[in-house]
Amino acid sequence: MVHGPNMKLSIVLSTQPAQFQAATFKGDLETNLASIASLGYEGVELAIRDPKLVNLDHLDELVCKYNLKVPAIGTGQAWGEEGLSFTDPDPTVRRAALERIKSHIPVAVRFKSIIIIGLIRGIVKPGVSAEQAMNWLIDALRECSEAARPYGIQLALEPINRYETTLINNVAQGLELIEHVGADNFGLLLDTFHMNVEEQVIEDSVRLCGQHIFHFHVADSNRWYPGAGHLNFRAILETLSSIGYQGWVSGEFLPKPDAETAAQKSIAYLHQICSD
Amino acid sequence: MVHGPNMKLSIVLSTQPAQFQAATFKGDLETNLASIASLGYEGVELAIRDPKLVNLDHLDELVCKYNLKVPAIGTGQAWGEEGLSFTDPDPTVRRAALERIKSHIPVAVRFKSIIIIGLIRGIVKPGVSAEQAMNWLIDALRECSEAARPYGIQLALEPINRYETTLINNVAQGLELIEHVGADNFGLLLDTFHMNVEEQVIEDSVRLCGQHIFHFHVADSNRWYPGAGHLNFRAILETLSSIGYQGWVSGEFLPKPDAETAAQKSIAYLHQICSD
Repeated sequence: MVHGPNMKLSIVLSTQPAQFQAATFKGDLETNLASIASLGYEGVELAIRDPKLVNLDHLDELVCKYNLKVPAIGTGQAWGEEGLSFTDPDPTVRRAALERIKSHIPVAVRFKSIIIIGLIRGIVKPGVSAEQAMNWLIDALRECSEAARPYGIQLALEPINRYETTLINNVAQGLELIEHVGADNFGLLLDTFHMNVEEQVIEDSVRLCGQHIFHFHVADSNRWYPGAGHLNFRAILETLSSIGYQGWVSGEFLPKPDAETAAQKSIAYLHQICSD
Repeated sequence: MVHGPNMKLSIVLSTQPAQFQAATFKGDLETNLASIASLGYEGVELAIRDPKLVNLDHLDELVCKYNLKVPAIGTGQAWGEEGLSFTDPDPTVRRAALERIKSHIPVAVRFKSIIIIGLIRGIVKPGVSAEQAMNWLIDALRECSEAARPYGIQLALEPINRYETTLINNVAQGLELIEHVGADNFGLLLDTFHMNVEEQVIEDSVRLCGQHIFHFHVADSNRWYPGAGHLNFRAILETLSSIGYQGWVSGEFLPKPDAETAAQKSIAYLHQICSD
């Protein structure tokens, strides 16, 4: 049995229009929250480009209305839509990225969420050495972790496959980064789609990462909903359970064939695995 | 048992310096051919940017000296280094790509090789509709297949993962393309690294593709040599054998930890699967 009734399931919802294709739900907020809750999800992971653009009272009200938790806040749209990153050669861009992440802290406090560091970490840009980019990244993560710590807020960096970033593609690199940052409220978010490309054996990497796993994303090998590809979710989630992971399992996958169907098929599949 | 002693193994060698990272061997031609032969490979798949730049007599001599076959010719460097493609909005670029592929026909005749259509097919460029790009692709493939047919030469298009091209990512799309092109000397090259990302179930896709598989690439899930990731090569190669595939199994993977080690580990692993 995997996780059993304690596996807390959430799904990604974008609060603003965005190009990022793997945010399953986009569009009208309340309609989507209602749909997510009615499908049986206990949580909704919110992709927020800029907290300034979100009416937090309204969001809080809606989330409460549908009895949903917000386990994590995705921040990558600030990279996708605005080009902000921790590793841009322009110091004003780096500073803006840093301040943006810090501006998520009050949101995270309000919803008791983890703050995700995904694509906003950036890439090794032309003219920048890998060492320099890594140093900027470490400095930024230290500063953000320090700012979040007094509030009890955790940051989770997501290893992302080689095609989307040149900085931190796998668990081994993530663990090395954790050592360099040296903050106990900084850990990793593992995503099964990226792990399928980057990890030698997914279950071994889950075990290796252990207590440093702060959040977990599920998508199948083709980035469709779990069950639509060839990943062995039973083995993966059993491993996650065996290391004592108590966090959320959050669906971040393509809205295919459509958002509603994908969300429904995913939760049905994951519940089936749990109940076997 | 998989394929047994009949599984013909080859590996990719670049004949010119190139940026493409998954050509295992690069650099001095004779040193590399000697090394490939000594490791037990029966064939070498040649990545050739432009046949004009290759001394074919010399190449032929070397290949004979080391008793190697040349099952296939890779053509993607013309895209990577020169930007040639079948689907560029500039008709002179499309024409140049077409003529370049035709110029490989005499090489293919000489070595009895398949001509690979990889990245040279291009992507859907800005300002071009997907339908227009597909029509250009179909026209180009028809013209090339027609030019190659009198010589008994086959063309094989490789479905390539979503990050590298927006045109033909999976077997289903490849089979639809084959119908549109309608040439019996046009088929597909399947690559396990790309299939890991794009196919729902790899073995099912191999079966579905059946006789249309003209060539086969192996790399593990992380694009390292087979055995370095989590693909089930036993199941994949058994399926390939079960559908009567008589072609080559060619290694196209990253030169990691180095080209020689990767080539050696790959052939040892594949031989072990065969002999179990």
